[in-house]
Amino acid sequence: MNDLYLNKLIEKLKESDFDAVLLSPGEELTFLIDYKIMLCERFQGLFVKADGGMFYICNLLYKDELDAVLKNDIRVYTWFDGDVMTDVVAEVFKQEGLLGKTIGVNTTAQSVNILEIMDKTDVIFKNGKPLLEEMRIIKTPEELNNLRKSSELVDKVFEEVLSIIKPGVTEKEIGTFLLDKMAELGGENPECIVAFGPNASYPHYIGDSAVAKEHEIVLMDYGCTVGGMYSDTTRTVFIGEPTKREREYYELVKRANLEAEKLVCENAYIPEIDKKAREILDEKGLAWTLVNRLGHGVGYTIHEAPDIKQSNPMYLKKGMAFSIEPGIYLGGDIGIRIEDVVIVNEQGECEVLNKTTKEIVVL
Amino acid sequence: MNDLYLNKLIEKLKESDFDAVLLSPGEELTFLIDYKIMLCERFQGLFVKADGGMFYICNLLYKDELDAVLKNDIRVYTWFDGDVMTDVVAEVFKQEGLLGKTIGVNTTAQSVNILEIMDKTDVIFKNGKPLLEEMRIIKTPEELNNLRKSSELVDKVFEEVLSIIKPGVTEKEIGTFLLDKMAELGGENPECIVAFGPNASYPHYIGDSAVAKEHEIVLMDYGCTVGGMYSDTTRTVFIGEPTKREREYYELVKRANLEAEKLVCENAYIPEIDKKAREILDEKGLAWTLVNRLGHGVGYTIHEAPDIKQSNPMYLKKGMAFSIEPGIYLGGDIGIRIEDVVIVNEQGECEVLNKTTKEIVVL
Repeated sequence: MNDLYLNKLIEKLKESDFDAVLLSPGEELTFLIDYKIMLCERFQGLFVKADGGMFYICNLLYKDELDAVLKNDIRVYTWFDGDVMTDVVAEVFKQEGLLGKTIGVNTTAQSVNILEIMDKTDVIFKNGKPLLEEMRIIKTPEELNNLRKSSELVDKVFEEVLSIIKPGVTEKEIGTFLLDKMAELGGENPECIVAFGPNASYPHYIGDSAVAKEHEIVLMDYGCTVGGMYSDTTRTVFIGEPTKREREYYELVKRANLEAEKLVCENAYIPEIDKKAREILDEKGLAWTLVNRLGHGVGYTIHEAPDIKQSNPMYLKKGMAFSIEPGIYLGGDIGIRIEDVVIVNEQGECEVLNKTTKEIVVL
Repeated sequence: MNDLYLNKLIEKLKESDFDAVLLSPGEELTFLIDYKIMLCERFQGLFVKADGGMFYICNLLYKDELDAVLKNDIRVYTWFDGDVMTDVVAEVFKQEGLLGKTIGVNTTAQSVNILEIMDKTDVIFKNGKPLLEEMRIIKTPEELNNLRKSSELVDKVFEEVLSIIKPGVTEKEIGTFLLDKMAELGGENPECIVAFGPNASYPHYIGDSAVAKEHEIVLMDYGCTVGGMYSDTTRTVFIGEPTKREREYYELVKRANLEAEKLVCENAYIPEIDKKAREILDEKGLAWTLVNRLGHGVGYTIHEAPDIKQSNPMYLKKGMAFSIEPGIYLGGDIGIRIEDVVIVNEQGECEVLNKTTKEIVVL
């Protein structure tokens, strides 16, 4: 059991409107109990109450496994396929004092089960994701150090990958190089997107077969974990001299990245940071092409709180970590992105963790 | 678009208490639109209304892809990361006449999004899984034929796999043989569980490293699709002469399987079928070891309606297809299962699709 974070969660619960939180199997539960449980269609999950009590409900099929994992610390209630699941759950809620109470659910809780239970039982389920994200939104000094190490690692990979970027190389070859190099340097869970030319105009591009031409835009988005903490960086480089338009767009994205990062500090208002980047892109009427948020939190997962977007009215605090990744995306035409992970450090200042050049790289 | 099933769904909707159904990306949506869409944390899905109208809501990131897939037939509404998602969804519901209405959700709809929308918008979401399952619970003659072919295929595999089962073989070697042979015979999506000795006592065993001894119980559970329809069969065979207890248990499971199948016919009451199998196992006080339902529906997925269990008070109809799979599971000690797929055929009779022997096989 991850006692540090279970205690943080219980503290957050006490301050919240929730009486309990449900963790169905998934990354959040694995993080808290140090064990990965498979999720099938049968309702199950760990309930953590604001008074610090905990219990688990699962199908009989999973009882042996859960008893072994949770030891005697946490009571495991079971329902059997031959039971009406909601009857069993209602009885457990009664025993555990949760009837009439409000329970936050995590991201993997399946709505078909949650709605069914809410229909048949006197409890109120609400979205518990913000509460669970809050538990991890402020990084500890050790986590901040691991974020730094993770970004240093991918920066080293950038210096090395440049040597293989030339006409004839494929997206897959660069991707394999990035993944292998991250692993070789000790990074775990390596991931990447490599997109050439028009492919780079799709932020979530998933192909890998394009072959680099004499003149090519090469977008590389990659990251991995060190000590559990993710890095996530994007650099866009050029094979052959960029055109005038490519250079203009690149400089605009670079400026959007730098100016947004300048606004990052303790107590900065998140929507202003997103707005700044879009204002710069809009000097050439291109803010509309940035179809996603300016950034997302990073930590034990690659996408977590805080989202850097206009609809997230939060103020930055020391210990927050997130990406700043402006881009210009003209579908099927051109795509450029520059992404760093930044933290609000112990001094309340912006610390940009990725230090590789943002000047135009021409290969 | 799968017009046959979209029309079936709309018919079911008209008869139901739902005003619409939401299909988030997953198997059910892929089945209806013939295209696989990735699901991320951003809310999206196809809404099908009881009046036959349809629309789609997604994040701006997915709009190009969805416009291409859905052509001009279905309007695609979008929200942007900078928007408050629930505001956009509320406005769409207003335009589409869904305010105050009841919407069924499918299995992949994420409760964090569903609860958030329900909190901020005047709609009622309910579990829509039974409705969506009803759409496919009665198989067409063509689907029944594909179920027959799929079961014939795995029966052929059984005859061939026996030749490699001997002391020294590993679970992995048998598993690879089963998967390769199903593929070779034209089966798609092959899957299997192979479990020796005590491993067979865990119905969801996922290891593969055990090596067969001179005396061994070998449980093989496998299936694949033909024309989209799944097979799913289990046979338990013996290396070396079974002990007296093994033989007794095997005969009991065999009888539970045969007697349960005898009860299958049009208008049979599902709980009675499950009950029959347990009564037979209880002749030796072993019904409690059957920790799961007696069977599950099969078709375009490996687990669908109807569940064969005491908490499912339905009557069988022509065209239903499901497994009958009694077992004895004494955790860490012994496991025996015999599983067939059966259908209620065009004559309303039980047709057992797996025809391989259920007599004790000693190798």
